[in-house]
Amino acid sequence: MSQGPGIRPSIDALPHSLIDEIARYGRGRDGMIPLWFGEGDVPTPDFVMDAANQAMREGHVFYTWQRGLPELRDALAAYHRRTYGMPVDADRITVTGSGMTAISLSIQSLIDPGDEVVIVSPVWPNVFASIEIMGGVVRQVPLTLGNAGWTLDLDRLFDACGSRTKMIFINSPCNPTGWTMGTDDMRRVMKFARERGLWVMSDEVYSRMVYDGSRAPSFLDVSEPEDRLLVINSFSKNWAMTGWRLGWVVSPSSFGPVYEKMVQFNNSGVPGFVQKAGIAALEQGDGFLADMVERCRTGRDIVCGVLESLPRVKVQRPDAAFYAFFSVEGETDSLTLAKRIVDEAQVGLAPGAAFGEGGEGYLRLCFASSPARLKVAMERMAPVLS
Amino acid sequence: MSQGPGIRPSIDALPHSLIDEIARYGRGRDGMIPLWFGEGDVPTPDFVMDAANQAMREGHVFYTWQRGLPELRDALAAYHRRTYGMPVDADRITVTGSGMTAISLSIQSLIDPGDEVVIVSPVWPNVFASIEIMGGVVRQVPLTLGNAGWTLDLDRLFDACGSRTKMIFINSPCNPTGWTMGTDDMRRVMKFARERGLWVMSDEVYSRMVYDGSRAPSFLDVSEPEDRLLVINSFSKNWAMTGWRLGWVVSPSSFGPVYEKMVQFNNSGVPGFVQKAGIAALEQGDGFLADMVERCRTGRDIVCGVLESLPRVKVQRPDAAFYAFFSVEGETDSLTLAKRIVDEAQVGLAPGAAFGEGGEGYLRLCFASSPARLKVAMERMAPVLS
Repeated sequence: MSQGPGIRPSIDALPHSLIDEIARYGRGRDGMIPLWFGEGDVPTPDFVMDAANQAMREGHVFYTWQRGLPELRDALAAYHRRTYGMPVDADRITVTGSGMTAISLSIQSLIDPGDEVVIVSPVWPNVFASIEIMGGVVRQVPLTLGNAGWTLDLDRLFDACGSRTKMIFINSPCNPTGWTMGTDDMRRVMKFARERGLWVMSDEVYSRMVYDGSRAPSFLDVSEPEDRLLVINSFSKNWAMTGWRLGWVVSPSSFGPVYEKMVQFNNSGVPGFVQKAGIAALEQGDGFLADMVERCRTGRDIVCGVLESLPRVKVQRPDAAFYAFFSVEGETDSLTLAKRIVDEAQVGLAPGAAFGEGGEGYLRLCFASSPARLKVAMERMAPVLS
Repeated sequence: MSQGPGIRPSIDALPHSLIDEIARYGRGRDGMIPLWFGEGDVPTPDFVMDAANQAMREGHVFYTWQRGLPELRDALAAYHRRTYGMPVDADRITVTGSGMTAISLSIQSLIDPGDEVVIVSPVWPNVFASIEIMGGVVRQVPLTLGNAGWTLDLDRLFDACGSRTKMIFINSPCNPTGWTMGTDDMRRVMKFARERGLWVMSDEVYSRMVYDGSRAPSFLDVSEPEDRLLVINSFSKNWAMTGWRLGWVVSPSSFGPVYEKMVQFNNSGVPGFVQKAGIAALEQGDGFLADMVERCRTGRDIVCGVLESLPRVKVQRPDAAFYAFFSVEGETDSLTLAKRIVDEAQVGLAPGAAFGEGGEGYLRLCFASSPARLKVAMERMAPVLS
């Protein structure tokens, strides 16, 4: 037995994260600069922590609403109205214990064994596992990197959808590539999904991390409230709340009673004081978010400036999200290269192979860190990549 | 469509909680005394909140360890050593975002479609759903209430285990009955499970809520570290932390890497500051727990004293957990009766039908409340139950 007797074969087969593998390899070394995870080095702002602490003292420490505090759902409805310029009724909003949880509960609600989900890759890998846990099948459609940057061939996406396909999963802006789907393409995908009766799950966690404009296009722009659309979002990236485990999903209102049950049978709701912290982030967090975006823009320019100067490196300066995703001529094994960079430069990057088809040969660097730290990292890495 | 198109039939079929139904029916009425949920009216102690607040300020707001902070797992190992008088290595301990999450991740790891789980009922109902979400099948073996109190016929339990049975689920001390399995019976169950290659999932969340001795018997007393045993536990009841969503599971150490993955794909870990609060509860919470048990004992005696004086009522004064589970002669529909008690006495009880086979005809009252409140509740209810 590899992992205890009687574990389901499909669970035994789930791969361990290559990001965790490189982190275990490098963690704790002298002077390491870890840029492997999808988070920055700025802690949660004080006004968010203050709100959590106050809510605790006020008694938000008991069992709570399964779909979220009504006042948080209202605050999210208001956030959507001002950010996306459209009404999103609180009835359509469910609060979850992270964007990941929103994905996992949605997959549990929709995917029977043998059902297929078509996924645009390379992409943040956890969604693959949530499908495989339910006995579902993943079909990947990789982006390609050319002169126009990362692009998706929509015909390939549509061709990948067969009789067992239940859902299309798109993460735009994309972790790790920064690829962002345009409104016209979203409209075409939504139309196709409607015709075929497919669900669209749109992971829009990076929708505010954009370097041109105030938000990325959203599937909410091209859909009706009762479309088979689930939009995943999170407090993690916008307000430096990765460790708080607070996300939300916008669904048709008819999906609400399903989430009500599924939350009950997963974690039975998010701590009330964490939700109160979320309200503070939504209501007082615009300035913090703007600063975060500027910090990431500076980080991007430092990192990509160096990468673009290295002849062996191929990189597309991203317009969104906070990752540089680049390849190095002659290097085909991303885990081996990431380990060499740990050894020779004491910098931690995520191997592209972690992100599914189209990812091998690339490395992901999270530039949501301080400019000084990023400069040191790039100085140390340049000789290895030259 | 009832709940949106394309929801899995097995998810559509999951029942809504009857406890939620009665709470929705009664919530917000003038003077309501709600005793329907499994929590008291004492907020989390200050030293736990202080620890959470301090940990936030110290930076425990980033992504964290999937199986829990090493220092929390060490503190849990120490807690087991001093509470159960036996070594439980930190390698065997995984921290989860509630006891419910521990159950759900374990079921996801073990139950394939068609696999059966044999469950001693009546019982806290969420476990049923976690099995049905995975396509598993629930077989219930009800306790019976006789002159010797609630008893389980072990032969019926063993007879219920067939060729598709993968697991036996036992909640002892039991919510709602207070039934507690003795060490000899546990040994017989463990022996049977070993012979058949079955898993035992033992929900021991109420193991410290006992009115005779310092803890209930545990399957840990009758097992070896590599037995197919999963012991579920939680901070909720012992330290008034229901709203914090913090639990743990003791498993064979070989199960550790499985939980590592399953946590990643569920909520990607519990907030670090919540885990730090858990350490404070373990290290400074013995006095609080002792007070809680005394408070519940007082509550039990008030509630059962009145119930025992009512000729139509049949009740067994429980030795553990914090519920009175009683039937009323001539009343066969527990939801209807619970609604009448809301209407006529402004007291909220949970209908027994919520707890599976053997539960209909009963009502559950949570007596983890203040004596004054419980006295008022009983005065108001007595006429309805007379």
